[in-house]
Amino acid sequence: MPQLRKDPITSRWVIISTERGKRPLDFPTAPTPRAVGFCPFCPGNEDKTPPEIMAYRKNGNSSDRRGWSLRVVPNKFPALQIEGDLERAGEGIYDKMHGLGAHEVIIESPNHNDVLSAMPEERVEEVLWAYRDRILDLRKDDRFQYILIFKNHGEQAGASLEHPHSQLIATPIVPKRAREEVDGAKAYFDYKDRCIFCDMIRQELQQELRIIAQNDEFVAMAPFASRFPFETWILPRRHEPFFEDAQKHDMVSCSRILKEVLGRMSQVLVNPPYNYLIHSLPLQETEVNHYHWHIEIMPTLVKVAGFEWGTGFYINPVLPEDAARYLREARL
Amino acid sequence: MPQLRKDPITSRWVIISTERGKRPLDFPTAPTPRAVGFCPFCPGNEDKTPPEIMAYRKNGNSSDRRGWSLRVVPNKFPALQIEGDLERAGEGIYDKMHGLGAHEVIIESPNHNDVLSAMPEERVEEVLWAYRDRILDLRKDDRFQYILIFKNHGEQAGASLEHPHSQLIATPIVPKRAREEVDGAKAYFDYKDRCIFCDMIRQELQQELRIIAQNDEFVAMAPFASRFPFETWILPRRHEPFFEDAQKHDMVSCSRILKEVLGRMSQVLVNPPYNYLIHSLPLQETEVNHYHWHIEIMPTLVKVAGFEWGTGFYINPVLPEDAARYLREARL
Repeated sequence: MPQLRKDPITSRWVIISTERGKRPLDFPTAPTPRAVGFCPFCPGNEDKTPPEIMAYRKNGNSSDRRGWSLRVVPNKFPALQIEGDLERAGEGIYDKMHGLGAHEVIIESPNHNDVLSAMPEERVEEVLWAYRDRILDLRKDDRFQYILIFKNHGEQAGASLEHPHSQLIATPIVPKRAREEVDGAKAYFDYKDRCIFCDMIRQELQQELRIIAQNDEFVAMAPFASRFPFETWILPRRHEPFFEDAQKHDMVSCSRILKEVLGRMSQVLVNPPYNYLIHSLPLQETEVNHYHWHIEIMPTLVKVAGFEWGTGFYINPVLPEDAARYLREARL
Repeated sequence: MPQLRKDPITSRWVIISTERGKRPLDFPTAPTPRAVGFCPFCPGNEDKTPPEIMAYRKNGNSSDRRGWSLRVVPNKFPALQIEGDLERAGEGIYDKMHGLGAHEVIIESPNHNDVLSAMPEERVEEVLWAYRDRILDLRKDDRFQYILIFKNHGEQAGASLEHPHSQLIATPIVPKRAREEVDGAKAYFDYKDRCIFCDMIRQELQQELRIIAQNDEFVAMAPFASRFPFETWILPRRHEPFFEDAQKHDMVSCSRILKEVLGRMSQVLVNPPYNYLIHSLPLQETEVNHYHWHIEIMPTLVKVAGFEWGTGFYINPVLPEDAARYLREARL
């Protein structure tokens, strides 16, 4: 059973997950060559993953068989486990609980070489619907407080398999960074009676310096205090705390702008490795005026090293205004 | 001039430092081959670095010449600049200030191939004295609120030059992570009237499960909620808020245990890339009972990816008790 442990000084929780049973020499000091040939996410290998949780299929053919366009399965090496209770406990000055949660893989396409930025818009939309469907299902389980959807693209960004996929992790606590964002936005709301994200969007649209793309429902921009070069946030123009409450036309617009931004990055940075993630209000929060869901995209261009770990303070070598201009001017 | 910008949501400061003038295609997507042959930190190339700030020399020979055993120079591409004023300013809802600070390089040895874990103890001690000397000098400048000493060893850990060196960055604000540690320790002290680090050391020495090494003045342990596999903290047994107040016998013991821990890591993990950093009380704090300086060492064994960026929540695949046992049992 994985464990959740809390750092007593900073109250940061850590997942200790020894499922893969790593011993000291299991850590490669040089990049590992990719396994060539076999891929557990390709059609025909459905029995090489745990049984599917859901899939989109055209002809209603049976599960764990070929014929899907998108498939969701449990992670074979889950960081957290779905069965059991939290069993919160102390150990002297320390606190821990069982590593309870969900860890799923969203296989975005049957085609091994597909990439989101080049897939048809309606296929990207399907990926967003899958995120939404899984969140709506998991949020019924009141053991969970947060659900993070994220994607690691490229080996440098932590993807261990090449086949296009995203991941979902549901946790029994609100993670530190989500907590900080929500609390920061709350403090602003308490002071100004306005959503800080709405204010940011207004100022960005007026200044135009950091806007990368926009459509009727969404804005993509380089954040003023970008941690990483070419970091990009996508936000709905209309105040909305939960991603999973997005409606059909939002999903269409969101998939369009996501595909566009990834396409611009691919053009300017030549298919860079990247991470993206969706930040949404924690599941059990009832105050909804201060928080605004969004997608954060971070190309993996620089190494995060000692200074960043030691201070939580990032050094970004590219001016966000320059990054936005490069991305805005990319020819698609 | 580099800029400091504050994320309005989480109050996290970021350094936007465009000194190196990166354009999109300057970011390597594959690891760059190391420059072979020329090294600006090797003796004889003293004129290839900015003029030295200080050096340890046996015979008092003149500066920026051969004959040193340790040399401190300004970083040629500083993230922050030493001249000027902060000029705090707003930009609509955003806050920024000039990127004022110091960024120095401590060249630990004239020998290109030296590594700390294999250097004689008195040479490691010299490195610690250099840290202390630089901090004592820079803390006279009241524009600075924090000084971070850190080391990136190995390319995977962010070292861009192979020659053994550490870095120092002095900042005009207290970085987020330092603030969180100090505030967390303060909250504990307010509740218990005891230093949380002292309590942790007491419990660890009694449980013995996570102890890696110890001597009369210091303890090395795997923290209960380690973020990274084989993460190790070195703490003085006696309560002491500031690293730079360490006395001669502390420095001797500290260099001994630092060398020992790095040697054990090198043995068990086969010369892993790593980062270490020294956490000390922010320079201008006057309450000293709750905070306890320490060294944090993090081997670079796993990639930090989307989940960690999205949540501030780490997945560690090695039980800290196992990591401690492996390191403790290494034959030196």
